[in-house]
Amino acid sequence: MGVEGAKPPAFFEKSNARRINMTTRARDVAAAVRAGRRTAEEFCRAQIARCDETDGDVRAWQHFAPEVALAAARDVRVDAPLAGVTFGVKDVIDTVDMPTGYGSAAYEGTRPPWDAPIVALTRAAGGVVLGKTVSTEFAMSSPGKTRNPANIEHTPGGSSSGSCAAVAAGMVHVAFGTQTSGSIIRPASYCGVVGYKPSFGTLNRTGVKVLSDSLDTVGVITADVRDAAFVTAVLAERPDLTCERPAGLRVGIFQGSRCDQALPETNEAMREAARALQQGGVSVRLMPVPAEFDAFYAHHDAVMGWETPRSLAYERACLHDKMTDITKAFLDQLAQTTRRGYAAAQVALRNRASALNRLMEGCDVLLTAAALGAAPRGLEYTGDPVFNKVWTLLHGPCVTVPVLRTEAGLPVGVQLVARLGDDAGLLAAAAMLEDALANMRRKV
Amino acid sequence: MGVEGAKPPAFFEKSNARRINMTTRARDVAAAVRAGRRTAEEFCRAQIARCDETDGDVRAWQHFAPEVALAAARDVRVDAPLAGVTFGVKDVIDTVDMPTGYGSAAYEGTRPPWDAPIVALTRAAGGVVLGKTVSTEFAMSSPGKTRNPANIEHTPGGSSSGSCAAVAAGMVHVAFGTQTSGSIIRPASYCGVVGYKPSFGTLNRTGVKVLSDSLDTVGVITADVRDAAFVTAVLAERPDLTCERPAGLRVGIFQGSRCDQALPETNEAMREAARALQQGGVSVRLMPVPAEFDAFYAHHDAVMGWETPRSLAYERACLHDKMTDITKAFLDQLAQTTRRGYAAAQVALRNRASALNRLMEGCDVLLTAAALGAAPRGLEYTGDPVFNKVWTLLHGPCVTVPVLRTEAGLPVGVQLVARLGDDAGLLAAAAMLEDALANMRRKV
Repeated sequence: MGVEGAKPPAFFEKSNARRINMTTRARDVAAAVRAGRRTAEEFCRAQIARCDETDGDVRAWQHFAPEVALAAARDVRVDAPLAGVTFGVKDVIDTVDMPTGYGSAAYEGTRPPWDAPIVALTRAAGGVVLGKTVSTEFAMSSPGKTRNPANIEHTPGGSSSGSCAAVAAGMVHVAFGTQTSGSIIRPASYCGVVGYKPSFGTLNRTGVKVLSDSLDTVGVITADVRDAAFVTAVLAERPDLTCERPAGLRVGIFQGSRCDQALPETNEAMREAARALQQGGVSVRLMPVPAEFDAFYAHHDAVMGWETPRSLAYERACLHDKMTDITKAFLDQLAQTTRRGYAAAQVALRNRASALNRLMEGCDVLLTAAALGAAPRGLEYTGDPVFNKVWTLLHGPCVTVPVLRTEAGLPVGVQLVARLGDDAGLLAAAAMLEDALANMRRKV
Repeated sequence: MGVEGAKPPAFFEKSNARRINMTTRARDVAAAVRAGRRTAEEFCRAQIARCDETDGDVRAWQHFAPEVALAAARDVRVDAPLAGVTFGVKDVIDTVDMPTGYGSAAYEGTRPPWDAPIVALTRAAGGVVLGKTVSTEFAMSSPGKTRNPANIEHTPGGSSSGSCAAVAAGMVHVAFGTQTSGSIIRPASYCGVVGYKPSFGTLNRTGVKVLSDSLDTVGVITADVRDAAFVTAVLAERPDLTCERPAGLRVGIFQGSRCDQALPETNEAMREAARALQQGGVSVRLMPVPAEFDAFYAHHDAVMGWETPRSLAYERACLHDKMTDITKAFLDQLAQTTRRGYAAAQVALRNRASALNRLMEGCDVLLTAAALGAAPRGLEYTGDPVFNKVWTLLHGPCVTVPVLRTEAGLPVGVQLVARLGDDAGLLAAAAMLEDALANMRRKV
């Protein structure tokens, strides 16, 4: 690829790292269109220009559809709740008017007969889809072409690679991601954007290429927490996602059973987030990690390991030769999962909500690592979801908030987790953290 | 349709009602192919002949594919676990080599880019797909063309209309159905076959047109209980589904909060099933119905009502004019569901397994009604799922066993229900009931 030693892309200014995220927010776009100050088409053109400017380096798009987007923008009702907000749709999510390849050569150029409901709902709400963002193959570990906007020698993470990179580079206001292990939270942390995996079942996931029916969750990637809340409030019809400042918030630092794997920058981000919250008047304490916590890893591996090779039964039987070696090896490894392990996981997870509640006793939100560290160098490896698997398994809502950049300019986020269904509490706490971090930076 | 006053089809002999189901069993087919006594192609040809003989009256096929089936049959490995077993696939389940119309003119002739995993797994196991069976539109209430093999003036029920009718008429050994309210159990009872809705998540449901992500379940329709266990053991990799005679089985008669709606033939079938079990040495007792039971109906309506119109967001936005008036009205009615009701249901159902356990305290299997009564006259109305909704909602396994025929020759079944995950116990009890009924008939 010849990216070794390459410079950060011209549009990226390390000295002002936040600037690349500082395009207009989704909520401001809709307000401006509603007020008649700008048109959806104007916003769409501006985003297309931004894509032209940045995507040569970033390569976020699997299929970029400016003409389709402009035509849609011209049709947007000015009073639609998401009027003029631009979207990237991860290539594992079906679209009727753009090819959907599931990140795989096996499905290159495939045209689904419908829009996935989440896409149809987005369009009905005035959202404008700019194209399909790069996914790893079948949202697993075989990487796509996308590079990290913060440093193009580094992976953007996966599997929602293009969605996180496109938002980080300011190409779209919002992008959809999907998560089975850590495919929203991890790449969002690597790219310095907000990744929000709502409670299981919050955003409609029909029309998404299935890996694991028990785990797959649709989420959004945005420039800040309030945008994540804004679009999800519309698409999931959750007006309670207001990010209203919570009174008496209790945050528990949860380090998990594998926290010794965290790199120094992640530990620093955790400390900084905790400091910011405490300066903001929030109660922060260290949570105990129950001895049985590590068993959740075995359950995640069993559920994904059992379900994924079977969900891809057709591909394994008929399209095997078109899959990459990485995907084939990954599927072979998953396929070693035993029925016994799967059955044990199913029984253990019958009441996931209670299992999550037990981990959170006495606090409202957990503060935990989003990823091992900053994005690894190279594009071959999209990173380790070790700090995401358990929360995906337990179905609770998770969000990553960008906290710092390494000396090399690579973003590092932290993750907040809340009880199943408490997406309002989670996002309110995350917005508070975001504010507290901004305040702290202002004071420095 | 001009069927008023029509005679039962020629192939149907009322005086020997069981005969139409007495084609070779799936398990015998696979055994015969493995032993080299018959070939998969011979079985396939016999079934095609049976279809030619019966389908003019029954109209079970949305797409009948004898040439594709014969080609597949010639390729079957003789040692495959389902070698030579013929299948009907409900038209809401994707197939790569046969059109999949989801029961709707809106998708007529659509060719999905894959086989749904359950179809791929069936084929990999040596099963031969004869075609796509008629579904109501999007597996809701707008009926297809299929007629009840027992009396073509009557509905076969829905939404798995063609699958139940095809098995009842002996056209295929097995057919796939899907259930969101009562779409497997009810039509199976109407057609006099075994309908088995496994525990939620048992059979892979990817590639099925989604109505309600929280409810939709794939199941099988077969001529007897042991065939349902046989094919599910292979496709779900559940070797524990052996139908071994259970010792000390405790059956609880559960009448629910709406049992006063049952018609006399259903009450008679319940009594006959209980009598057969008792004569077989099984402990049978009447279960209490908790006061809060009826709330499950509201929860089912809330979950399906919220999720279904959103799962069909694209169709509602872009294909509305191609849907039948019945479907449009049904969707409009569902769309009245409130977010509040949905949220309440989600909270109430966080531990469905325990809720079901509480209803079953002190017994292993519930005996309950499968449908209001025999299949209603006419093809416009596919019947009421009132006795199925709660069990679908609670995710436990259900199976219907044919018990009697009305004087008009219409079949009536009963339903057995077990704890979440206890599919082995359910099918063993159902096989015991089937045997007990046969013994009782023999003695009469």
